[in-house]
Amino acid sequence: MSTTAKQSTASTTREILIRRFKALLPAEQVLSSAEDLHPYECDGLSAYRKLPLAVVLPDTIEQVQKIVELCAELDVPVVARGAGTGLSGGALPHDQGVLLSLARFNRILQVDPQQRVARVQPGVRNLAISEAAAPFGLYYAPDPSSQIACSIGGNVAENAGGVHCLKYGLTVHNIQQLKVVTIDGELLTIGGSGLDAAGYDLLALMTGSEGMLGVIVEVTVKLLPKPERAQVILAAFDDVVNAGQAVGNIISAGIIPAGLEMMDKLAIQAAEDFVHAGYPVGAAAILLCELDGTNEEVSAHVYQVREILNQSGATEVRTADSEAERMNFWKGRKAAFPAVGRISPDYYCMDGTIPRKHLPEVLRKMADMSKEYDLPVANVFHAGDGNLHPLILYDANKPGELERTEEFGGKILELCVEVGGTITGEHGVGMEKINQMCVQFDALELTQFHAIKNALDPKGLLNPGKAVPTLHRCAEFGAMHVHHGELPFPELDRF
Amino acid sequence: MSTTAKQSTASTTREILIRRFKALLPAEQVLSSAEDLHPYECDGLSAYRKLPLAVVLPDTIEQVQKIVELCAELDVPVVARGAGTGLSGGALPHDQGVLLSLARFNRILQVDPQQRVARVQPGVRNLAISEAAAPFGLYYAPDPSSQIACSIGGNVAENAGGVHCLKYGLTVHNIQQLKVVTIDGELLTIGGSGLDAAGYDLLALMTGSEGMLGVIVEVTVKLLPKPERAQVILAAFDDVVNAGQAVGNIISAGIIPAGLEMMDKLAIQAAEDFVHAGYPVGAAAILLCELDGTNEEVSAHVYQVREILNQSGATEVRTADSEAERMNFWKGRKAAFPAVGRISPDYYCMDGTIPRKHLPEVLRKMADMSKEYDLPVANVFHAGDGNLHPLILYDANKPGELERTEEFGGKILELCVEVGGTITGEHGVGMEKINQMCVQFDALELTQFHAIKNALDPKGLLNPGKAVPTLHRCAEFGAMHVHHGELPFPELDRF
Repeated sequence: MSTTAKQSTASTTREILIRRFKALLPAEQVLSSAEDLHPYECDGLSAYRKLPLAVVLPDTIEQVQKIVELCAELDVPVVARGAGTGLSGGALPHDQGVLLSLARFNRILQVDPQQRVARVQPGVRNLAISEAAAPFGLYYAPDPSSQIACSIGGNVAENAGGVHCLKYGLTVHNIQQLKVVTIDGELLTIGGSGLDAAGYDLLALMTGSEGMLGVIVEVTVKLLPKPERAQVILAAFDDVVNAGQAVGNIISAGIIPAGLEMMDKLAIQAAEDFVHAGYPVGAAAILLCELDGTNEEVSAHVYQVREILNQSGATEVRTADSEAERMNFWKGRKAAFPAVGRISPDYYCMDGTIPRKHLPEVLRKMADMSKEYDLPVANVFHAGDGNLHPLILYDANKPGELERTEEFGGKILELCVEVGGTITGEHGVGMEKINQMCVQFDALELTQFHAIKNALDPKGLLNPGKAVPTLHRCAEFGAMHVHHGELPFPELDRF
Repeated sequence: MSTTAKQSTASTTREILIRRFKALLPAEQVLSSAEDLHPYECDGLSAYRKLPLAVVLPDTIEQVQKIVELCAELDVPVVARGAGTGLSGGALPHDQGVLLSLARFNRILQVDPQQRVARVQPGVRNLAISEAAAPFGLYYAPDPSSQIACSIGGNVAENAGGVHCLKYGLTVHNIQQLKVVTIDGELLTIGGSGLDAAGYDLLALMTGSEGMLGVIVEVTVKLLPKPERAQVILAAFDDVVNAGQAVGNIISAGIIPAGLEMMDKLAIQAAEDFVHAGYPVGAAAILLCELDGTNEEVSAHVYQVREILNQSGATEVRTADSEAERMNFWKGRKAAFPAVGRISPDYYCMDGTIPRKHLPEVLRKMADMSKEYDLPVANVFHAGDGNLHPLILYDANKPGELERTEEFGGKILELCVEVGGTITGEHGVGMEKINQMCVQFDALELTQFHAIKNALDPKGLLNPGKAVPTLHRCAEFGAMHVHHGELPFPELDRF
């Protein structure tokens, strides 16, 4: 089809869509002017931008069902979007598709302190759940950095993490039930209130599936009792390798801290300049180790962790003795991203996970690559679970620098895979890491993913082009490990 | 086809199979005589018995791949079997199929204390993993009652639980990676060593899939550090409802015990008569509450739990002050099943899960049903996570009593669904609960399961007839909730 013919088909589809949407929804819930579409052109990964054919803002499950049914009828892609804070481009619109915003699904439907669950709509902000649960002494554990803004539906779609996931698990470990609209417009309830659920584990399958298997319209999250006490220790090191070793020593001692974070020299300096948290500027690395639990447990653990840090070669170990001091210790860590934003025109936040034991080696290799690519890297990350967040500093206005940054970022992810890790810790794959999926998985594994996708969305209309690359794309990327001399099930290689 | 024609085709298939298997495997690894097949005719659910066409005992992954490939080529069902201790008939042979025993896969391949994982073959016994990890101060947390005998591959297939799952989670929460042979004979590695994994969560999907999506040939389990101290409290109640309430009160106080078990009058009496643990005979119910962690934490929690138990109306609260006393407290609980076996010719162990808050109501209703069916019930169960194990006492030699027992058991599971629970806690669905799957799930939900099955095993050769009923079967059972007036995707209703 010629480009003009394609455009004209698209424009016809667009007109039909908008007309049909307007019959389903009040006028203010259907956006189609360029001006109205622009705010939706990207999510937190601003390097990719696209305009959808239309944006729809349903506020009932029935409306979502009808929207999806209509898209299926017209073979139009559907991209669901929560708060749009994702960092891997998972909510990037499809230029021939509809953006389905769940912003109006913002109600907390129930907080049940006895069952320790909250039933919420997908557009509810992560932090709002903990706020609603606070009067009962409860909270929702996963805490992405964006928790003040990100919505729970997106958290589920990306299987989001956060500082406290080391002890309390990822989103998948903290939800109990989902209501999902399938591509046929059917409303499916998965999971349940029991410990185990019969049948295949669709709850885990849906979590982290990046909007490719269904549209989440309700989430029941588990709530945890607020720990009696939380205390944080700050340790400085004059060598990143020692800091990495200390992380292993704490975990090997059988202690699971509530959070165990590392910042390197560049990150410490940037954070200190920005928020003046009193960090030991000049240290090669700091660790922040938070311990929570009963009073007795925390006292015992604080003592033990201080010992371990000293034995691991810490040059300084401080314990926050008041809640004000604890907040101050965290202030620098929490401000680290914007702080790095102050010292560089642009930065690119990577997200990969490695087995903890490879921390020293990977940090060293990243430092070498930083020199090779002539791009500084600041490290601020969840050391306890080996979840790296290297921030590559660059200037998008310098020709070629964005491309060099993206290549460097890709190499970091490949290094994670090389040492037995994965290309995502908590940000998902989205558009950003789709090529690295070809490094992480072989053709057989990708084929299983495609078979699952085919089972639940045979026409491939839900968030196409994200998260799981086609075998064809991998072959082009040059990373396809072809199995037994041929691509298996080539008929599935269309998503 | 006439019965005779069917038998002759089966016998031809059988001959071909056995000839081909003997070309693949040493003679002693292919069993085909009636005498050799008999030990495999059932698993722990002895009410169902079937002989397979042949039993194969591979000892390498390559052999498993070739066996499965051959079965796929000849359209012959394959049922994988570990130690055969399962209680829902998941490893029941298929009378037109091959039983693939993983008994020879009994090696612990690696214990890595730094990464806190063990890589083991699927036939390794659950307890053997903890024994191998003990020198490093580590253990594998899920502890089904059968842990001395059951194998880890079966634990994964059934997503097994145990006393300690309240605090430490089910099998799915304690494994990291699986190697699986697909129905095409391909070797697939799923999961990884990082916190999160990119792509759909096939690890969770495979766990609990009861051998219907692939054959597990290697398992990497997570290991936990042994807690510094464990202490158990025994509380007696003169009313089951108070005991149920106490469970809720402990959990609501923000305490997660390592185990929280309940036994009722009949179970207490039977256990005491058998092992003389010193239980308070005559009590309506006892609770056993185990607390573990650091010394300080356990001391604080023991104090707090004793207070709660007293306030909840316990008539007696005892704390085990030595390890010998702790083992003694547990002795009665651990011997409860054989103890009930001594007082009744037969018993049927049920397994369902309910939201904790419905415990008192469900216990009361079961007592009513017990009168109605004229069959005594002993209750011994994981109260903390609402996982019931009612033991229905009956005599298989009395005409009609087995049928009445099965009907009563089915009603208990339906009651679990009615109050928002599930028909399995940790035993799986297998053959036993396949009709109740129709009560738990509607046609749309079952259709999603069939779509997943179709994606990974399109010919339905892996453990057919288990875990997920056909829509047809549900319609016959009279429990199909027909959606929009018709069965969706009838073409998928063939597994």
